[in-house]
Amino acid sequence: MKDLILIGAGGHASVCLEIAELHGFNVKGYLAPSKSEHFRLQTLEWLGNDTKIDQNLCENFEFINGIGSTGNPSIRISAFQRVTSMRGSFRTLIHPNAILSKYVKLGHGVQIFAGVIINSGAQIGDNVILNTGSLIEHDCKIENHAHIAPRSTVLGGVTVSEESHIGAGATILQNLTIAKKTLVGAQALVTRNFPEQKKLMGCPARES
Amino acid sequence: MKDLILIGAGGHASVCLEIAELHGFNVKGYLAPSKSEHFRLQTLEWLGNDTKIDQNLCENFEFINGIGSTGNPSIRISAFQRVTSMRGSFRTLIHPNAILSKYVKLGHGVQIFAGVIINSGAQIGDNVILNTGSLIEHDCKIENHAHIAPRSTVLGGVTVSEESHIGAGATILQNLTIAKKTLVGAQALVTRNFPEQKKLMGCPARES
Amino acid sequence: MKDLILIGAGGHASVCLEIAELHGFNVKGYLAPSKSEHFRLQTLEWLGNDTKIDQNLCENFEFINGIGSTGNPSIRISAFQRVTSMRGSFRTLIHPNAILSKYVKLGHGVQIFAGVIINSGAQIGDNVILNTGSLIEHDCKIENHAHIAPRSTVLGGVTVSEESHIGAGATILQNLTIAKKTLVGAQALVTRNFPEQKKLMGCPARES
Repeated sequence: MKDLILIGAGGHASVCLEIAELHGFNVKGYLAPSKSEHFRLQTLEWLGNDTKIDQNLCENFEFINGIGSTGNPSIRISAFQRVTSMRGSFRTLIHPNAILSKYVKLGHGVQIFAGVIINSGAQIGDNVILNTGSLIEHDCKIENHAHIAPRSTVLGGVTVSEESHIGAGATILQNLTIAKKTLVGAQALVTRNFPEQKKLMGCPARES
Repeated sequence: MKDLILIGAGGHASVCLEIAELHGFNVKGYLAPSKSEHFRLQTLEWLGNDTKIDQNLCENFEFINGIGSTGNPSIRISAFQRVTSMRGSFRTLIHPNAILSKYVKLGHGVQIFAGVIINSGAQIGDNVILNTGSLIEHDCKIENHAHIAPRSTVLGGVTVSEESHIGAGATILQNLTIAKKTLVGAQALVTRNFPEQKKLMGCPARES
Repeated sequence: MKDLILIGAGGHASVCLEIAELHGFNVKGYLAPSKSEHFRLQTLEWLGNDTKIDQNLCENFEFINGIGSTGNPSIRISAFQRVTSMRGSFRTLIHPNAILSKYVKLGHGVQIFAGVIINSGAQIGDNVILNTGSLIEHDCKIENHAHIAPRSTVLGGVTVSEESHIGAGATILQNLTIAKKTLVGAQALVTRNFPEQKKLMGCPARES
């Protein structure tokens, strides 16, 4: 198994790093614009910024996308695309205390944090973050680059489209479709479908 | 141990089926109005609709009540009563990743999904669903046929009366009584007692 | 290891008692103004009220602070101070089904209930309650005597100052500071900083 390189150096990276350690993966160092001041990253070697990602690195290592995406996933997506465009790959990270149905399909480089529950029939796209304690019910589809924030709840049969953000503690009612690039606010309750690229807040959620 | 027959063929049935599999229970087939199109049910034999439930079936099998009950539990209750009126029985299903206090009393045919927590002194009635990630605090009483939806929180000393529905992500404050057949909406916060058979929505919850 | 004495005799004490049992700790009895009517406490010996706490007891036993603190932590804090002023100590209680990062610092007499998740870099002060299913994200600081109620969510980098109460199901957005003695209501969503000692309710939370 290849050694890993962590992209990013903040809180999200630190949680990814611990999951890697729990699996005994070897993390060689991290890429970031400058040396990290986060206590956890200081145990790792700083390898430079992300222009270091080249064919050679992509052949010899796998990556962890340690860039968070609260509200704006563009930096996270661009790191993903830089690596995959060079045929590099991301290691999927699943916290040992997540609960996954046997009947779940996972994409490339998915991150599943502690306390996450994924029920039967769910499909999780590439580069998706299922953050701490989030719940994906049966038969959901979570598309590429979506971020399901801590403790949010996606009920049965929901589609969360590409690059959407479901805020912390939010609930999406069953069988809805969250359009591409939607931002659902923290603690919001989504009770119906909305057109694309909206910011939805409140209980029930309204455009904001 | 008797083989099982699953009543119902949708998302709720599919989650029940996986819990049965995790325990190594043998499920002979399912009863539904027509053959299921759900991918998980297609691995099982369709045994016909629920008029097949007779004395003979009730003597030779146990049942799983795979009928969900969002908002209206009447079909689920009627399946329960048909079986029990013929002295048939339902298997209680407890996901291996639920956390139950040793001091909990469970009724007949209770379903406890992944990530559920039940604290000390709670009493759970017959045919109750404690859906994924729901939390029943100490000294609660959840009466027959109630449905505690995913990720809802019932604080200490609460009574949820028969046939009530506590919506996804809702919170019921401590020591309240939810009247019979109440529907508490998703993400609602119930802060006081209400008369019977109301629909309660919002934070704090009001009649709707 | 010293035997334990439980201070308090209600629902919170009963949950603490079960965690102690799960670890095989020996609980000698409980201190309360009168004999408890709670079914779980009736298996223990009533040792009198808390004026029994003296130097002798503090040398020979450790304590569990079984006094809850919904809204008003003063009785809980005064029990803590009485014991520690006599150089007595409290046993930290961690439910076996809590999920703790390896990079968490715990104060004295912390109580961590079932289903709690604490991520990397969190610091938890003395006499803190992390109630059932609460979530403390990476790099949070939860100061002395705070109570994080069931299923509440404290996002990354938040400081919850001394003696604050974060209500059931509430969410505190990342990097905020909750001032000393703040009461955050159940299901509230805190989106900005507030001056000291406020009662915050609603989504988004406002002074109440």
